[in-house]
Amino acid sequence: MRAIIAVIGGQNGTTDEALRLAREVGRLIAERGAYLICGGLEGVMDAACRGAKEAGGTTIGVVPSAAKQDANKYVDIPIVTDMGTARNVIIVRTADAIIAVDGRFGTLSEIAHALDQGKKVISLKSWPLEKMGLEGTNFVQALTPEEAVDLAFDYAEKGGA
Amino acid sequence: MRAIIAVIGGQNGTTDEALRLAREVGRLIAERGAYLICGGLEGVMDAACRGAKEAGGTTIGVVPSAAKQDANKYVDIPIVTDMGTARNVIIVRTADAIIAVDGRFGTLSEIAHALDQGKKVISLKSWPLEKMGLEGTNFVQALTPEEAVDLAFDYAEKGGA
Amino acid sequence: MRAIIAVIGGQNGTTDEALRLAREVGRLIAERGAYLICGGLEGVMDAACRGAKEAGGTTIGVVPSAAKQDANKYVDIPIVTDMGTARNVIIVRTADAIIAVDGRFGTLSEIAHALDQGKKVISLKSWPLEKMGLEGTNFVQALTPEEAVDLAFDYAEKGGA
Amino acid sequence: MRAIIAVIGGQNGTTDEALRLAREVGRLIAERGAYLICGGLEGVMDAACRGAKEAGGTTIGVVPSAAKQDANKYVDIPIVTDMGTARNVIIVRTADAIIAVDGRFGTLSEIAHALDQGKKVISLKSWPLEKMGLEGTNFVQALTPEEAVDLAFDYAEKGGA
Repeated sequence: MRAIIAVIGGQNGTTDEALRLAREVGRLIAERGAYLICGGLEGVMDAACRGAKEAGGTTIGVVPSAAKQDANKYVDIPIVTDMGTARNVIIVRTADAIIAVDGRFGTLSEIAHALDQGKKVISLKSWPLEKMGLEGTNFVQALTPEEAVDLAFDYAEKGGA
Repeated sequence: MRAIIAVIGGQNGTTDEALRLAREVGRLIAERGAYLICGGLEGVMDAACRGAKEAGGTTIGVVPSAAKQDANKYVDIPIVTDMGTARNVIIVRTADAIIAVDGRFGTLSEIAHALDQGKKVISLKSWPLEKMGLEGTNFVQALTPEEAVDLAFDYAEKGGA
Repeated sequence: MRAIIAVIGGQNGTTDEALRLAREVGRLIAERGAYLICGGLEGVMDAACRGAKEAGGTTIGVVPSAAKQDANKYVDIPIVTDMGTARNVIIVRTADAIIAVDGRFGTLSEIAHALDQGKKVISLKSWPLEKMGLEGTNFVQALTPEEAVDLAFDYAEKGGA
Repeated sequence: MRAIIAVIGGQNGTTDEALRLAREVGRLIAERGAYLICGGLEGVMDAACRGAKEAGGTTIGVVPSAAKQDANKYVDIPIVTDMGTARNVIIVRTADAIIAVDGRFGTLSEIAHALDQGKKVISLKSWPLEKMGLEGTNFVQALTPEEAVDLAFDYAEKGGA
């Protein structure tokens, strides 16, 4: 079964730098043959899906509303929940590994759900959780899109162990 | 965007006839280029996914548990919800049209959610809702897998109108 | 622990007769000391909560939106889900017994979820599911609010058996 | 309408100090006439409900499983979701203000959802989010149960503004 990698991150007020990183992460995920899953909206989600499509990948967007039209234009498969931010939990449960790029509190909720589920989260200019003292957890910082995607695939290929 | 057609139906105690119909429905959905979405488990869900895979299609299974391993072996993309039967709502919201094959109360809940959302449901040996007097609704009976899939695509291609 | 009895039924286009029945059902539930749970909106939900409050009861409204202000004015405890009609599942799971009054497809989805969960549903001028041939199930018709509430408490007091 | 105050915090491995604080917070919430809502399980949730019951309050437990029996023995109203940790979102959406005591990643997810929804979170020996640089947000630290409950009621009584 193909791996499913989540890219989580902010919708509004995202920096150009974050969008560039997200697009590159999306491209690398697709090149390595995994599905990309995200929240389906704009900002980091749109940039990551765009990158994946540019590399011929398949993208899944789990949208919070009742309308598949709310998915960004790079989403191949909109999963329509009408469950608001409870859909964050579905993104994380479905993913084999999670890459966070930038983001605000919605992203922080996804990181927390992932760690609560015992899954690995790779942060790329996202929340500095290590400042709160999280030694030995599944939360790691990556410096580049390449490193983030390498860490995500290493984890996913070992079955999330 | 490719259409997404749901196949809903029973997991346990499904007749051989229902499994044969579901497999044929799955095959026809894939041949016509749509994604197949279902609840991801056994019975009608497994048979429909099997048919779709035999025709080279892509299958999405929205599983109720927290484990993607609970998806049947013909599911390409397991969407992991850990939301029990609340996941029924997601299947129906995501689908552009819904085909019901056989099924018990879980299937009836999906039919009801679909009609509540104003979506078309095509029944193939599923619940006889017409006996309760549903003239003029989006609920229709089909006699064969071909007819069911034709009706589903007609509806989906018109944008669900 | 006090029993929790659900009253489910239509929001729009409800007849005066149905509103009268729902209000009486609500009153009787409160007089017998149970919590009343419902979807929190207008129509049958509002009438049932009104009846319960007139008898000094406590009402719980599980609203589909993100705003507790969407609860009708007879709701004491708004449970705010922002999960749309997926909240129907929560109403049914929380209830010890379910009374359906009138209603359309949303109500049918709740009846189906309840029967799928093995719970008793008492219908008072609601869906005629018996026409589809449901011998021996947990679905029963009541002729009066008194009979409906008696059946609900009999079932709830036996622990849902 | 009575205010609803959430107490969130850890289930397992909670310190005696945290349990003592949670119980006191629960007691104060009940004394001031609000409903207490929580996740319904053990640890901080159990201690907070216990404190509220000792002061004659009413407690709501939003349980993640399908069984109301999973609620701790101080829960008056178990809301049964069968939605796993997606129920965290419901707790936060329902609450007029949120008090976090101790806790691990599940609690962090609830804090993040609350801040994402624009709601105030008062931390009592919970996550030190201020270390990540959250100036000017709705996240504040309290030093005592009294201060935490005062801040929560101040916020709730102003309508969450």
